[in-house]
Amino acid sequence: MKHNFGAGPGILPHEVLKQAAEAVVDLNGIGLSLLEISHRSAEFEAVLDEAVKLVKELLEVPEGYSVLFLQGGASTQFAMVPQNLLPSTGKAAYLDSGVWASKALKEAKYFGEVDVIATSKESNYTYIPKDYTIPTDAAYFHITSNNTIYGTQLHEFPKSPIPMVADMSSDIFSRKFNVADFGLIYAGAQKNMGPAGTTLVIVKDEILGKVDRKIPSMYNYQTQIEGGSMYNTPPVFAIYVSMLTLRWLKSKGGVEAIAQENKAKSKALYTEIDRNPLFKPVCAVEDRSDMNVCFVMENPEHEKPFLKLCDERGIVGVKGHRSVGGFRASIYNALPITSVHALIDVMQEFQEKNK
Amino acid sequence: MKHNFGAGPGILPHEVLKQAAEAVVDLNGIGLSLLEISHRSAEFEAVLDEAVKLVKELLEVPEGYSVLFLQGGASTQFAMVPQNLLPSTGKAAYLDSGVWASKALKEAKYFGEVDVIATSKESNYTYIPKDYTIPTDAAYFHITSNNTIYGTQLHEFPKSPIPMVADMSSDIFSRKFNVADFGLIYAGAQKNMGPAGTTLVIVKDEILGKVDRKIPSMYNYQTQIEGGSMYNTPPVFAIYVSMLTLRWLKSKGGVEAIAQENKAKSKALYTEIDRNPLFKPVCAVEDRSDMNVCFVMENPEHEKPFLKLCDERGIVGVKGHRSVGGFRASIYNALPITSVHALIDVMQEFQEKNK
Repeated sequence: MKHNFGAGPGILPHEVLKQAAEAVVDLNGIGLSLLEISHRSAEFEAVLDEAVKLVKELLEVPEGYSVLFLQGGASTQFAMVPQNLLPSTGKAAYLDSGVWASKALKEAKYFGEVDVIATSKESNYTYIPKDYTIPTDAAYFHITSNNTIYGTQLHEFPKSPIPMVADMSSDIFSRKFNVADFGLIYAGAQKNMGPAGTTLVIVKDEILGKVDRKIPSMYNYQTQIEGGSMYNTPPVFAIYVSMLTLRWLKSKGGVEAIAQENKAKSKALYTEIDRNPLFKPVCAVEDRSDMNVCFVMENPEHEKPFLKLCDERGIVGVKGHRSVGGFRASIYNALPITSVHALIDVMQEFQEKNK
Repeated sequence: MKHNFGAGPGILPHEVLKQAAEAVVDLNGIGLSLLEISHRSAEFEAVLDEAVKLVKELLEVPEGYSVLFLQGGASTQFAMVPQNLLPSTGKAAYLDSGVWASKALKEAKYFGEVDVIATSKESNYTYIPKDYTIPTDAAYFHITSNNTIYGTQLHEFPKSPIPMVADMSSDIFSRKFNVADFGLIYAGAQKNMGPAGTTLVIVKDEILGKVDRKIPSMYNYQTQIEGGSMYNTPPVFAIYVSMLTLRWLKSKGGVEAIAQENKAKSKALYTEIDRNPLFKPVCAVEDRSDMNVCFVMENPEHEKPFLKLCDERGIVGVKGHRSVGGFRASIYNALPITSVHALIDVMQEFQEKNK
């Protein structure tokens, strides 16, 4: 077994993979593969129903919100959000906390005016901008809850006077938050929820239907709500594996329990980075992510041999994103704390060897 | 084992399912699941490259065409096609041969004028309209190559003076055709190519870039081409299983060989429908589909007991679409001729019992 610190598609629970593999051959003993049954079959309808129910239960989604499983990743949401929420003559407010945030706001410009109310671009996004005022005349306020590339995270969500929209692709289901504070939440599945191929959208029904623009069916949240995520054939396998992963999360004690584990994992790793003189952190301490732990080496010449040692010890996926360099250990829900300890051991072993 | 005549998501080859299940646990013995590796890893890049190569090889795609694996199903293509090809002041020509064709043209109306040059709606789409002229001043001409619901198929493609666009969701890879006759071809994977969750698009590069409209990145074929189907995280699993299915098709002798098998399967089944006095066909003989064989019963009271007998004999997915009624046997590439014989046996057994 490898220790998988990949940034995404990321690690999934071993028992989920085992069950998913079984369903690919024969789903629940019905004599057919999950891949070759109708999405209108009783079997798949039960899967989708359970997936939606688990999302509602685990995140305590209040009444008045719809839960959707769509396709196209968060990048499609970058367009669908303004297409559905931003009037052509209106404006939307964006917090620019990283490359994904800046990609999101770029897509919004196809539909209306964009007000970037704060950015940390000048520091290569090493912190979350904090001094800003959310304009009350904007249609919505968009944030990215966790910045995978830089390892920063919004630990407290702002109070927004207008509907708040969040890209939670890399930290959904990793910690508690209040869904009622948001107008819309979206997340690509492939970090904390399941495999690549489906995108979770949680939308407050009452914020829809306020733009004049005519929206093609597949891009329209209203059509997708009316179709119950089955306006057309949904990504059956990705939804099934997401359902299994959410079941696993529930069996672990839910979001509150996993949040404690996640805190323990990130604390252990940051403690080692701060302690070990060969390594140094890259982000503002108060904004350190509990999902993606970024660090570099004091001596850049140590990076290659350290990566080699990681590889020898079965630690994979720790190479940093090219725009930050160094290392990034993604410690999503499914990564056991034993893997974090394995990485810490290698950091200490490397220190010993390089005294 | 069941005989799976489901209309889609449909049957996949047994060995493909077995290999897919193995990869869900451990891909090629690398110690990681296919579901938890980076889409930028060497392993997945090899998968995507091979999938694209197999499409080009099996369909003999000429130079000047791009092959894409996207998300969102054919229904998303209903919008992307006009968004990318139909100028706001222009018009597009559509052949209305069924519900899917009519859904496609409905989406085109969001982007420009639509000219429905022929329809068989008045007869509940029991034939393919044939007497029409393709307007030379339209941006493109859209057809649906096979109509899953009604069991009709275009056996000869028209010669089009303007770029021809085809929804081939339910018969791609089932028979030979000349890609060079088309400007754009799209197909949801879940009938003849793989599981639900990815959509094949084959587009002639030179027809792009001719509309003034600004197109958000994910909806823009140009962005997807430049990103090599990886502008964002692709649907890794669906592409992998499609690749395996295309490998299987190649090992069977390719499109020409499977087309012969498909003809043998459909011929056997239509022969029995025509012969057996209890059953009757629903479509024009010359337009009968080799993929979806639709039939009803002379005595509607026989339908329930026949369905029950099918179920007892392990024959599943034969219930007709609600808009046609009766029965629909989908006999996609992966369905062995032995399954067709099993269905014919049940039809004859039912005839015996109801003499």
